[in-house]
Amino acid sequence: MSAAVTTPTPVRVGLLGCGTVGSAVVRALTSRPELYRDRAGVDLRLTGIAVRSRGTARDIPAHAQALLTTDADAVLDGCDVLVELMGGQEPALGLMARALDRGIPVVTGNKQVIARHGTDLHDRAAASGTTLTYEAAVLAAIPVLHTIRDMLAGDRLTAIRGIMNGSTNYVLDLVQSKGVAVEDAMAQASDLGYLEADPTEDVEGLDAAAKVICLARAAWGVDLAMGDVDTTGITGLRDADFAAARDAGEVLRLVASAVRTEDGTVTASVRPERLAAGDVLAGVGGAGNAVVLDADLAGRITLAGAGAGGDATATAVLGDLVGVVRALRR
Amino acid sequence: MSAAVTTPTPVRVGLLGCGTVGSAVVRALTSRPELYRDRAGVDLRLTGIAVRSRGTARDIPAHAQALLTTDADAVLDGCDVLVELMGGQEPALGLMARALDRGIPVVTGNKQVIARHGTDLHDRAAASGTTLTYEAAVLAAIPVLHTIRDMLAGDRLTAIRGIMNGSTNYVLDLVQSKGVAVEDAMAQASDLGYLEADPTEDVEGLDAAAKVICLARAAWGVDLAMGDVDTTGITGLRDADFAAARDAGEVLRLVASAVRTEDGTVTASVRPERLAAGDVLAGVGGAGNAVVLDADLAGRITLAGAGAGGDATATAVLGDLVGVVRALRR
Repeated sequence: MSAAVTTPTPVRVGLLGCGTVGSAVVRALTSRPELYRDRAGVDLRLTGIAVRSRGTARDIPAHAQALLTTDADAVLDGCDVLVELMGGQEPALGLMARALDRGIPVVTGNKQVIARHGTDLHDRAAASGTTLTYEAAVLAAIPVLHTIRDMLAGDRLTAIRGIMNGSTNYVLDLVQSKGVAVEDAMAQASDLGYLEADPTEDVEGLDAAAKVICLARAAWGVDLAMGDVDTTGITGLRDADFAAARDAGEVLRLVASAVRTEDGTVTASVRPERLAAGDVLAGVGGAGNAVVLDADLAGRITLAGAGAGGDATATAVLGDLVGVVRALRR
Repeated sequence: MSAAVTTPTPVRVGLLGCGTVGSAVVRALTSRPELYRDRAGVDLRLTGIAVRSRGTARDIPAHAQALLTTDADAVLDGCDVLVELMGGQEPALGLMARALDRGIPVVTGNKQVIARHGTDLHDRAAASGTTLTYEAAVLAAIPVLHTIRDMLAGDRLTAIRGIMNGSTNYVLDLVQSKGVAVEDAMAQASDLGYLEADPTEDVEGLDAAAKVICLARAAWGVDLAMGDVDTTGITGLRDADFAAARDAGEVLRLVASAVRTEDGTVTASVRPERLAAGDVLAGVGGAGNAVVLDADLAGRITLAGAGAGGDATATAVLGDLVGVVRALRR
């Protein structure tokens, strides 16, 4: 008598985008398939990787190179779960909407799309009985969305406050801790790759504002527009501002926050703030990120870690992917 | 034409134990039922509260007082989800086992039972297709189990390290930051209720060891016994040890840790360690708790918050409860 051996059908994973984060996801899935089989309860099979150009050099194994295609529709058509890591609005938004309409779960790291169209995409997911998850869109390896949605599912958040952009924190920290002039610190951050060729999203606070919008929606179900976030970047800061903070024993940080008042109003802002040295956010150095959550029963929870980077963001993508597949198999 | 209005049948919640944490759970469920209906998608109805003696004074509303009973079996028989907050081994263990065998999901905050019998209870849950969750058993409001199980579901942990006992941290911090003598600090911690009448579990490191066992099981599926954790408490520390640490610019902390080597061996310990002032665990003051997780892709994640207390522990119970009910309704 031998028990029948049944092998569950592998779950087909389609990937849109193969940049820094996408290739980290590909390397993880292809280098340790047994880990993902163990965690998800079934093989995760990468079935297609949509890219703009197949010619770009990418640090992924040869058998994954063979999955590269410029036909994103074909990737969508051939998958059970769609992972979107192209970034930007279109075609990412349209592809995610099509997948969700068809009942295909979507995992994304696209904060721009989620901040601007998250509610619409959530509605589409709900209408077809599937899921949209995006832990990777907000603070990479810092488990802030899991904490808000699961840990605090039985509690009520009152405030969210954090350092949500590593590039600008690197600049501010360099000026303060090393006395480097603001402009030199910006140049150094560019050289190290912390600032994009067009650093506007970072230095004007727009990147942090998009993250705050995603967190406020997860926490309170509110739908803030970019214009609703009172946003001031770091470009207006002068050496004298840093000197004044230093003289007062304080530290300048770009703080992103959202607060819910008793009557249910949510206000959000991103702006440079002078923090007392004992403030947990004052202690976040370099390109670090941290977020502080205040809730009725939990009190204060602090989460810190890598808020950006290929591998750190891939962790969040892979965690969502395993979670989605576990739920599919229930 | 009018749409039929269907009200989903309330989920019946049975509670075992009504001490500090149990009564915080009762107050939350009874004071804001609309929050739980919204979060879980259905009414959560408390149907029975098993206690040793109905006569004890408890800070819960009158209509909840009416649910108090000494008949734990009746509470189990009349519920869809069992919340166990009695603490201790028996009868908690037997009641949880019976519920799981019958397919009733169990939420517990009982680290003693989970550390010693977690694998057996997990097996029972799996056999009957139900779930056992215990975020509240480890570090209360700090989302460490959610982070290990969900956020890091696609990553591999290499080390866990933390301050997992607030009472002893309070004592150590008092000695170091205020120069109070060790014995006076212990007395002060007792007066403030940070130490139990029998402080053995705390000061000998057993409480922290039980938490490390729970975390190691969640992280690596290993089944450590209490004797496998190399445990040294704080009772052997003398004023001279603190002075030596202070002179070296270091801080004494009771550090609990578990490490997995490349070959899969997991070693765990609880012991006083001298930490450099820059160590994130050195910065945890008073009765605070914090845990540092190292993972292959995520890098280092730090979680800090209230690791004990009625409301902070209730948050974790309620988060698990909402999660269980969401899963029941899928």
